Amino acid sequence: MGPHPAVAAIRLAVRRVLHDILNDQPTPDSSDRPGGLGSWEQNPHERPPSPLVLVACSGGADSMALASALAFEAPKLGIRAGGITVDHGLQPGSDLRADEVVLRMRELGLDPVEATAVTVGREGGPEAAARDARYAALDAAAVRHGAEAVLLGHTRDDQAETVLLGLARGSGIRSLSGMAAVSGAAGRYRRPFLQLDRQTARKACMVQALPVWDDPHNADPAYTRSRLRHEGLPALEKALGKGVVEALARTAQLSRDDADALDTWARQAEAAVRDSAGLLECAKLYALPPAVRRRILRRAAIEAGAPAGSLFARHIEEVDRLITGWRGQGVINLPGRVVAQRQGGRLVIRQG
Amino acid sequence: MGPHPAVAAIRLAVRRVLHDILNDQPTPDSSDRPGGLGSWEQNPHERPPSPLVLVACSGGADSMALASALAFEAPKLGIRAGGITVDHGLQPGSDLRADEVVLRMRELGLDPVEATAVTVGREGGPEAAARDARYAALDAAAVRHGAEAVLLGHTRDDQAETVLLGLARGSGIRSLSGMAAVSGAAGRYRRPFLQLDRQTARKACMVQALPVWDDPHNADPAYTRSRLRHEGLPALEKALGKGVVEALARTAQLSRDDADALDTWARQAEAAVRDSAGLLECAKLYALPPAVRRRILRRAAIEAGAPAGSLFARHIEEVDRLITGWRGQGVINLPGRVVAQRQGGRLVIRQG
Repeated sequence: MGPHPAVAAIRLAVRRVLHDILNDQPTPDSSDRPGGLGSWEQNPHERPPSPLVLVACSGGADSMALASALAFEAPKLGIRAGGITVDHGLQPGSDLRADEVVLRMRELGLDPVEATAVTVGREGGPEAAARDARYAALDAAAVRHGAEAVLLGHTRDDQAETVLLGLARGSGIRSLSGMAAVSGAAGRYRRPFLQLDRQTARKACMVQALPVWDDPHNADPAYTRSRLRHEGLPALEKALGKGVVEALARTAQLSRDDADALDTWARQAEAAVRDSAGLLECAKLYALPPAVRRRILRRAAIEAGAPAGSLFARHIEEVDRLITGWRGQGVINLPGRVVAQRQGGRLVIRQG
Repeated sequence: MGPHPAVAAIRLAVRRVLHDILNDQPTPDSSDRPGGLGSWEQNPHERPPSPLVLVACSGGADSMALASALAFEAPKLGIRAGGITVDHGLQPGSDLRADEVVLRMRELGLDPVEATAVTVGREGGPEAAARDARYAALDAAAVRHGAEAVLLGHTRDDQAETVLLGLARGSGIRSLSGMAAVSGAAGRYRRPFLQLDRQTARKACMVQALPVWDDPHNADPAYTRSRLRHEGLPALEKALGKGVVEALARTAQLSRDDADALDTWARQAEAAVRDSAGLLECAKLYALPPAVRRRILRRAAIEAGAPAGSLFARHIEEVDRLITGWRGQGVINLPGRVVAQRQGGRLVIRQG
């Protein structure tokens, strides 16, 4: 008899990602490929060390399921499996909790395992600040241990929530594209559970008798994501039917591909709309589809020093009207003291 | 003292659209432009009749506000303003209700006004069937009266709901693009209130002492849109903040522009990936961005006879794997008895 379907599902998801990671590794006859196991390439007589994959584990159901699947699958592929838990220091006793997660990871057979404490700042709100601190710690741990990849336990439900959070910004399809299956420097972060629902991860912990910890933050209505999870999404499912989470996750993937393609187009088109002095020609910009033109304007504004996070659709629309609705407008002020103006049929965007 | 801000807002929205309609009309020195007032062009000595714009009015707050603004603005621009109400025959007494709406439109000074009765079928569910019947009746009325345009009272709130309905399909950014400000044959349908919130329309009726009728369907939880309006969207606003409706409406516009640009790209790329016999070359398809490639595959399937409405993202993904994950797969069955298969480096999509 095979494992419980939920356990089979989490293991399959992890196995696929581990295969991808191995395929991305340099092989003996491809030492001209960039990146990879430098020391081994420099010394071809030594056997390459087995690659290390870490799991980022909070002790919650998603990441405990992920840790268990990694511990099970990695040895079969000659991969070393380790784990990191981040102590955000946001609740009393969080250090003890982190120690407990370390213990559980060790019980699963992960090695190395460690807890790393971070100080959460305030920039961008509590959720963003915690996330920034967490990724900085994971990055550092990956480098310290020489890990090929760090697995993250985000599920399809997390993805659906992320899409809705992006939707609320109203800033276009890039913000609808959620989390990537592969992200970070050199594709360090992998999310094996992005197509898997939270219920499956929870079930897999249950049938494997893994104790899980429910982060009280996840139920705290002070957090937008928590309100979305416990009120927003259920109400949306009630109105639209049970397929909403899947539809949102599919929207993420399709939006990501679309946004990538349009970014490519904008990059290519940008070269063609600049004059010999490198200035943007309004007539040529006008001839482009609005979606491509606005991406070029956005890139130009960012290049001139406007912070991407403060540059909203309405800013770009206003700059766009210098092209599509020219009636002698004056200088347009953008975030980061960047100004845009039309001069002699050229669009000039620069630090003011 | 000017009108109440809500009344000023609805009038401004209508005035802008009426200007657009006039600008789209042929002028005496542009008789080579297609479309327009044929009889006048054929007989240059006759004065052209003033153009007619109809409002589609249910008697609800949105369309009553629209009717009142049209009645106020049209004469100032030399436009005749008329109105149509559609009796869907779905409730007892709907004919009397339609007569009452006709009376109210007449009181606003609209002329011609008429009620037109339709028989609602069952295809695609009750909401789609009612919509199909309604647009067929409006089309017929526009032709019968020689109207230049038909104004529809959809507000930004309707747009937000439409985006969420599209999101629930999970079929990509085209279904996120909501309703267009201009749609239908020769841009017949115009939606002046697409940037205006429902509350403004309601307020404008109130301050103008216009009686409005609340369609019981709008509150009937048997309808998806009604559930969305009364439960889904409020819960989402509670979780994400008050700006959700605006963000969804902005997402619609951005998604529409993006989808248009990618459709253009796909149309252009399609010619380049066909061989001399008109077959799709797999190697060339492979080199395209996934977003463009999948649009070409979708177009090819529809061209071969697959009904667009039954062709889902998962169908296209399966066809796409003939290109990106070729391992000797067999024939892939698509809706409308269309089959796709890979043969000698070519993709063949045809009726099976």
